[in-house]
Amino acid sequence: MTTPADIAAHVLAKLKSTRPLVLCLTNNVVQNFTANLLLAVGGVPVMLNHAEEVRDILHSCANALLINVGTLSTAQAGIMQTAVKCATDAGIPWVLDPVAVGLLTYRTQFCTELLKTPPAMIRGNASEIMALAGVNAATCRGPESGAASSDALEAAQLLSSRTASAVLVTGKTDYMTQGGSTCICTNGHELMTRVTGMGCAMGALAAACTAVADTPLHAAISTAAIMGVCGDRAVARAQHPGSFATAMLDELDSLSPESLRQHAKLTMHEHGGTAIQ
Amino acid sequence: MTTPADIAAHVLAKLKSTRPLVLCLTNNVVQNFTANLLLAVGGVPVMLNHAEEVRDILHSCANALLINVGTLSTAQAGIMQTAVKCATDAGIPWVLDPVAVGLLTYRTQFCTELLKTPPAMIRGNASEIMALAGVNAATCRGPESGAASSDALEAAQLLSSRTASAVLVTGKTDYMTQGGSTCICTNGHELMTRVTGMGCAMGALAAACTAVADTPLHAAISTAAIMGVCGDRAVARAQHPGSFATAMLDELDSLSPESLRQHAKLTMHEHGGTAIQ
Amino acid sequence: MTTPADIAAHVLAKLKSTRPLVLCLTNNVVQNFTANLLLAVGGVPVMLNHAEEVRDILHSCANALLINVGTLSTAQAGIMQTAVKCATDAGIPWVLDPVAVGLLTYRTQFCTELLKTPPAMIRGNASEIMALAGVNAATCRGPESGAASSDALEAAQLLSSRTASAVLVTGKTDYMTQGGSTCICTNGHELMTRVTGMGCAMGALAAACTAVADTPLHAAISTAAIMGVCGDRAVARAQHPGSFATAMLDELDSLSPESLRQHAKLTMHEHGGTAIQ
Repeated sequence: MTTPADIAAHVLAKLKSTRPLVLCLTNNVVQNFTANLLLAVGGVPVMLNHAEEVRDILHSCANALLINVGTLSTAQAGIMQTAVKCATDAGIPWVLDPVAVGLLTYRTQFCTELLKTPPAMIRGNASEIMALAGVNAATCRGPESGAASSDALEAAQLLSSRTASAVLVTGKTDYMTQGGSTCICTNGHELMTRVTGMGCAMGALAAACTAVADTPLHAAISTAAIMGVCGDRAVARAQHPGSFATAMLDELDSLSPESLRQHAKLTMHEHGGTAIQ
Repeated sequence: MTTPADIAAHVLAKLKSTRPLVLCLTNNVVQNFTANLLLAVGGVPVMLNHAEEVRDILHSCANALLINVGTLSTAQAGIMQTAVKCATDAGIPWVLDPVAVGLLTYRTQFCTELLKTPPAMIRGNASEIMALAGVNAATCRGPESGAASSDALEAAQLLSSRTASAVLVTGKTDYMTQGGSTCICTNGHELMTRVTGMGCAMGALAAACTAVADTPLHAAISTAAIMGVCGDRAVARAQHPGSFATAMLDELDSLSPESLRQHAKLTMHEHGGTAIQ
Repeated sequence: MTTPADIAAHVLAKLKSTRPLVLCLTNNVVQNFTANLLLAVGGVPVMLNHAEEVRDILHSCANALLINVGTLSTAQAGIMQTAVKCATDAGIPWVLDPVAVGLLTYRTQFCTELLKTPPAMIRGNASEIMALAGVNAATCRGPESGAASSDALEAAQLLSSRTASAVLVTGKTDYMTQGGSTCICTNGHELMTRVTGMGCAMGALAAACTAVADTPLHAAISTAAIMGVCGDRAVARAQHPGSFATAMLDELDSLSPESLRQHAKLTMHEHGGTAIQ
């Protein structure tokens, strides 16, 4: 029987052997860390800032697309719309990272509009997923979630059934859901929230995984497991955020599929439309 | 009697317990380091790139605003003007970091105009503070100061009396002045000038401190002490700029209010309008 | 007799003593690492985002200019054209880093146009140099080269003879060529390609070197040797990309001219128009 840990190990092996090229249209704060994380784990990051070039690369060699709205500008919004259209036309999977959606009106409207062409996966914290699903989440912590990830499970399942996308809710526990199946990952450490861009870079990894996984849900499971296991290993070496960020990149580089399989804490739940708790 | 070190310890304790949300409108080079420094010391960084979103967050949950003109563009200038207006209307303290003012005409005019709505604090190196005060400083080192911080003390006192803002001049010795009081901080190390964005991130910390301190001068004192003490501790562990930057973030995370109180080298001077030397 | 290693040692000594100010018009992903690398090795980085300010600094205190098209936008393209014109008028050397040229049409046309005012040096990977020289290179790895650097030597010599610029092709082996002379550098390590911006920051170092070297070829030789020797030393301390990036900055700070002279693996070839192999 194939376990979720087998799936994650398989996806990591494919990442390392094929090194998918991921076009990352993401926020200004995290571009460097995102690129370094993709390079470490086994991907080729590309960041662009011009609609024509975005079209070029999506029609030539991109394997996946990340849309992260963390520092959305009017100009970037236009480029992102072009990118989603091109990716969809070309059959390239894309991932939406709806940073601070629900808190800020402009990006909430932008993401809602974007979802009319559903992505392979949506990755967000509890507040963001609840906002996208239309469930009100009390929050005023900017990019941080005001809710626990478990609070957002029902919203995630609702959002997934509406868009057919896989939904990955990250937090103390990560939830991955699509098509009546939900997987739970309990790896990872609180220190991951103390490094800027850890969640955003996870969105880029999610995009890389969609390029090589059999299904978006498999990609979501693999993303959570890879980040969580590396978080566990990094915190064993570094207990403060500066050195922890460095240790994460080192662990993402050295993680083997076999080690991922052994240390991933994943459990699968089938629920046929009923939310698990 | 309350010493400056008591003040700094009190402000650090409040930072860690309340974690103020700081909207950082800052330059492209330092956004990542700025966000990581705020997260390490106890703040929530938010970076935005759209006037409407800036308005939204200043009218909902921002506790302080940083304006840093390091890579000012025409578009960003417009967003910054909106931000200063909204912050002032909402009673949210803001900090100006006038990077390379005096050297470059466009940003000098922009900051001069901005100062008509005075901030809680202005943080700059000697050349920048002298330029803002209208005292000519010979410099041609780009973002680096051509003058020693002590040369700028009189200019800082002049600028503070004109704007009523606290002024923090950073350098080998840091000077913090407002309303006839000047405090001097002798913590810190030259290696801090060898990491890009150390001063800019200090401006973001200054903004966080204005959100929790009793007065802008207290915020300025706390900012200088926190950075200086962490610099002293980091250089004991790391003597080269790459590992020093990492060590700074680790020290900012682990610094306790009690340790700050013990190691801060702060002296207070009352002068009723006469410059101390 | 002056060896290439003597040249590199001389240029490094001048970098550390004069600290040239380098205006870096570069991509969003690498600005922080670029600035930190220049500060570590001995330069003053300045990044700007406004045509007027670019003119100001090129007419006052800049010593060199870097143009890196990694995340070229329409607005940045205009600023870059202004910068190249001002630098040329002011006699300030500039370096072109044609990231992903050949793969993306917009930037290929932009760089081709820019080359009508030839730079002091062009630094690129094999694919980029072949594309600029009009030799087709099969590649679809985004910013990574699809060809080995040795494949691009002939193209580099062609490009150099056409523009009179020094050409630096980076890869497993680095080739530096100009005016009938070619130098080969075999320092460096594959891990350098696993850190984002290592090549881009090398372009900024190249610009700094053009400000202090006797000839652009000397600058190219020095750039390759400095990066390569520091790469060798860093990999002896750090075998994974996170800690390797930190170690690189530390080594760039501590590298002495004498140590560079001893460890640089440089060989010079005179060829009078015939390609060496």
